[in-house]
Amino acid sequence: MKTEFLKACKGEKTDFTPVWIMRQAGRYLPQYHTVRSKGTFLELCKTPERAAEVTIQPVDYLGVDAAILFSDILVPLEKMGAPLEFQEKRGPVFPSPIRDQAAVDALGIPDPEDDLGYVMDTIRILRKELADKVPLIGFSGAPFTLATYLIEGGSSKNYFQTKRMMYEAPALYGQLLDKITECTIAYLKGQIAAGAQALQVFDSWAGVLAPRDYAEFAFPYVKRIIAALKEATDIPLIYFANNGATLLDQTIECGADVLGFDWRINLDEAVRRVGQKVSIQGNMDPIALFLPDDKLAERVKNVLVQAKGARGHIFNLGHGIIPETSPEKARLAVELVHSISREMR
Amino acid sequence: MKTEFLKACKGEKTDFTPVWIMRQAGRYLPQYHTVRSKGTFLELCKTPERAAEVTIQPVDYLGVDAAILFSDILVPLEKMGAPLEFQEKRGPVFPSPIRDQAAVDALGIPDPEDDLGYVMDTIRILRKELADKVPLIGFSGAPFTLATYLIEGGSSKNYFQTKRMMYEAPALYGQLLDKITECTIAYLKGQIAAGAQALQVFDSWAGVLAPRDYAEFAFPYVKRIIAALKEATDIPLIYFANNGATLLDQTIECGADVLGFDWRINLDEAVRRVGQKVSIQGNMDPIALFLPDDKLAERVKNVLVQAKGARGHIFNLGHGIIPETSPEKARLAVELVHSISREMR
Repeated sequence: MKTEFLKACKGEKTDFTPVWIMRQAGRYLPQYHTVRSKGTFLELCKTPERAAEVTIQPVDYLGVDAAILFSDILVPLEKMGAPLEFQEKRGPVFPSPIRDQAAVDALGIPDPEDDLGYVMDTIRILRKELADKVPLIGFSGAPFTLATYLIEGGSSKNYFQTKRMMYEAPALYGQLLDKITECTIAYLKGQIAAGAQALQVFDSWAGVLAPRDYAEFAFPYVKRIIAALKEATDIPLIYFANNGATLLDQTIECGADVLGFDWRINLDEAVRRVGQKVSIQGNMDPIALFLPDDKLAERVKNVLVQAKGARGHIFNLGHGIIPETSPEKARLAVELVHSISREMR
Repeated sequence: MKTEFLKACKGEKTDFTPVWIMRQAGRYLPQYHTVRSKGTFLELCKTPERAAEVTIQPVDYLGVDAAILFSDILVPLEKMGAPLEFQEKRGPVFPSPIRDQAAVDALGIPDPEDDLGYVMDTIRILRKELADKVPLIGFSGAPFTLATYLIEGGSSKNYFQTKRMMYEAPALYGQLLDKITECTIAYLKGQIAAGAQALQVFDSWAGVLAPRDYAEFAFPYVKRIIAALKEATDIPLIYFANNGATLLDQTIECGADVLGFDWRINLDEAVRRVGQKVSIQGNMDPIALFLPDDKLAERVKNVLVQAKGARGHIFNLGHGIIPETSPEKARLAVELVHSISREMR
């Protein structure tokens, strides 16, 4: 098995920079559509053989150094008791948003095996099938990010309902976040037990919070999750606070092995600020995969050069690869990361 | 006329911190709806008497220290030759996106008086009506932000079409941005001639760019506009790069008198980084207007305390006030800025 990804997470030396791509199992790949067309998105998440198949597709095609479980951050919320739909145009929708005491009280804590067994089964299948290939990353959403979907009832433009609950009903907000945190800890421990070899916590919307609000309403729950996992496991933990440059002085203290960065911050600044405390992951703009080959190579190199002083660096995009991307270009980017980083060693 | 706003822009001492609110003339005010209901949004922009009326409403009601012209950043683009619609659910739409050489070639440079006379007339009316009240701020979008609307055909989630043109067809992108820049310079000079007493350039989407892309594809046009205006006028110029914390090392060099900040960055960090070179504007989260009164006061004070070392500070929200806001709460926030900052002097 390729171990560069795990080594870089822990700050051990590698012969080249490992790379994986957020949403690497996804709509830009024709082979994904072949599997996806057999049912809905949620059905795909809930059918372990198919979810495992699309997880492996980019490992084989792109040559990345890690696989990431195909799933969605919202599936545990459904099992907390919040019905979830994926609508073709609107994306995820919770038809009954969680906005009052009764709604929060009604939420339960799902058991990973009993309630989310399809995720655990997918992980078990993947561990067998990936055994000689690459490590498997499991994941969850971070509590604030998950809460936004529950409170808003789906995606949001300004997170009005979420922030309003934070400000107007902080105790209720805290109860909701406590429940989501407890659910997430159990869910991630389940993934560890099933065989996940690393875990990433996605805080996709952390960047909509002012630093003081992040400190009060989001970060404590992240720290609680990471502390609980650190007691249970030695596998690498990655925390990705999207658009989180202004939160970095806080996130550096989260306890994870790796911090992920979006493309808005230069990695040399990130390295300067995190020092040798953690490894870093990121951060090419996903749309840079539309650059001509020579300019793409220059940009890949630029990211690698900026990350040079890091304790460890895992190359990634700064956000998910977009459906319009050419698979060939994504594969070229992976090759470039490998070849250029080898030259730079 | 209250002159604190103009003084703070230039770094002169004031007895209290001046305040205005982005989108202060807007949908959260019942009196706005009364005027708006007489026609479409674009008709309101194009009817000087009505546009002036809604501009003045918040000056009278909130007690803010500056008025800002009621208009939309997209109106000059329409007169460049890109038909514009405002759709109730989607917002602004350009049904014919600008994506190829022919489309860029077809764009013209509108004359402020001949083509956008309704804006200039609005300014002239406002100067008369505001004479003994507060200064009038004119505005435009920044070229990159304006280009995203033209290229995407409206709002966007990931700015794919815009970045693709930047990366795949940089020469064409440059021609488009040159035209928008030329249009914007003429448009803002027209506003100065008509009587604007300060100007703000809104770079609403600057924050979606990596620092190196901002440096290449957005910032040069901003600098060109500000340099051209600085040759023509002494009135204060404000540049607001939304979500621009990671661009600050660049934006500090833009040449404006004031930099605006969204709520993602603590103002004390902003002050530390800009020093005494410029004044600062911002930056309370608009949703903080949903806090209980005592907590709102605490938060207003927090912003004022953070801004204390600034050359000059104009209090504002970090983004536009949202329609759900209570007018009373907005008025209270303005009073709090005035009273707390007086105490702090």
